[in-house]
Amino acid sequence: MSYPKSMLTLIEQLKKLPSVGEKTAERYAMSIIDMDIEDVTLMSNSIIEAQKNTQRCSICNNLSESNICDICSSDKRDRKTICVVEQVTDLIAMEKTEEYHGLYHVLDGLIAPSKGVLPDDLNIDNLVSRIDEGVAEIIIATNLTIEGETTALYLINLLEKHDVDVSRIAHGLPVGGHLDYADDLTIIKAIEGRRKV
Amino acid sequence: MSYPKSMLTLIEQLKKLPSVGEKTAERYAMSIIDMDIEDVTLMSNSIIEAQKNTQRCSICNNLSESNICDICSSDKRDRKTICVVEQVTDLIAMEKTEEYHGLYHVLDGLIAPSKGVLPDDLNIDNLVSRIDEGVAEIIIATNLTIEGETTALYLINLLEKHDVDVSRIAHGLPVGGHLDYADDLTIIKAIEGRRKV
Repeated sequence: MSYPKSMLTLIEQLKKLPSVGEKTAERYAMSIIDMDIEDVTLMSNSIIEAQKNTQRCSICNNLSESNICDICSSDKRDRKTICVVEQVTDLIAMEKTEEYHGLYHVLDGLIAPSKGVLPDDLNIDNLVSRIDEGVAEIIIATNLTIEGETTALYLINLLEKHDVDVSRIAHGLPVGGHLDYADDLTIIKAIEGRRKV
Repeated sequence: MSYPKSMLTLIEQLKKLPSVGEKTAERYAMSIIDMDIEDVTLMSNSIIEAQKNTQRCSICNNLSESNICDICSSDKRDRKTICVVEQVTDLIAMEKTEEYHGLYHVLDGLIAPSKGVLPDDLNIDNLVSRIDEGVAEIIIATNLTIEGETTALYLINLLEKHDVDVSRIAHGLPVGGHLDYADDLTIIKAIEGRRKV
C-alpha cells in the first residue's frame, strides 16, 4: 500500500520543482494536505497567476507583468549604463543593494559548450542592438565561474568593436571574509585586482 | 525594484512549505513561471485535489480518500497486529519493505512536554479502544530519539493494563553500518539487544 492516488499525483507534481526529490516532495505534500482549504486555494491560484501574468521584458529580459519591465520603463534610471547578469535572481540581488541605478540585461544563462549552450542560445544579440540607444558603459556581472568567465570574455570581445566602455565587476575577498579561509583563486583575484591607496 | 507582483505572491505562498526560505522559494517560483501552462495547471490542480480528497482514516489515522483507509479495509491484512508509528511517512516506509502485513496506528506526533505536546494531543485514546477488536500484539515503532522513547515508554505503561502483547522494534547497527563509525548510543543499543545464536 502507498499514499492515496491524489497524494501520489501531488508528490509527482512537486518533484518537478528544481532539486526536489521523493522525500522532499512527500514532506511538502504532507504539509499541503494539512493546510486549510483557504490557504491551499491561495497557493494553487498563485501558481497559475504567476505563470499567466509574468512575461519577459522585450528590452532587457527581466521578469515583468507587461511587455516592458518596471526598470526599463522607469524615468528614474540612468540609461547610460547597462549591467549584464546571468539570471533574474542576480538582478534582484543587485536591486536589493539600492546602489545601482542603471539598466540591466539578463542573458538567461551562460555560455557552456560542454552543456551545449552556445552564444546564440543566450540573449546576446539584443544587448548589441541596445548600445545605439546612448549607452556609455556596459558592466559585466556574470559570476566568477568557468562559464561566467567564458561568457564575460566572449562579451568583452564582442563589445570591443562598439563605441562603449566595458567593465567587469570586482572579484576578491568578500566583506567580512578571512584571508586564511579564502580559496586560492579568490586570493589570486584579490591580489590581481589590488588598488593603490 | 523587485519581482513583479504575481511573482512576489507566488514566492510568499511557496514559503509556506516546510523549511522553504526566501532563496528556495525564489528558485521554485522561477522554475514555475518557466513551465508551460499545461504543466502549471496540472501542478496547481494537484494541490487543490490532494487537499480536498485526502482525509485521515477514522480507525488508524492513515491518509485515505475515504473514511476508512485501504489498509484498515483490506481483508488481506493480519488484524491481530498493530504497528504504532509517529507519522504517515513512517507507515509508507514500512509498507515499502512488503514484510509487514498487520495494521497500523498513526500517532501524528510524539510526546514532547518541552514543546507542549502531551499524550492528549496525540491519537492515543483511539489506540486503546482498538485493542478489544481481537488485537494480540502492538509493535511500537517510534524512532529512538528522546521524544520517540518517551512516547514508547508512555504507551508501554498504558498498554500494560490491557490484555495485549507489546513489543518495541529493534535498535542497533543498521545493515551495512560500520561499528567504528556508529555513535555510542547505537552501539550500546546493539549490545543490549544482542541475541543468542
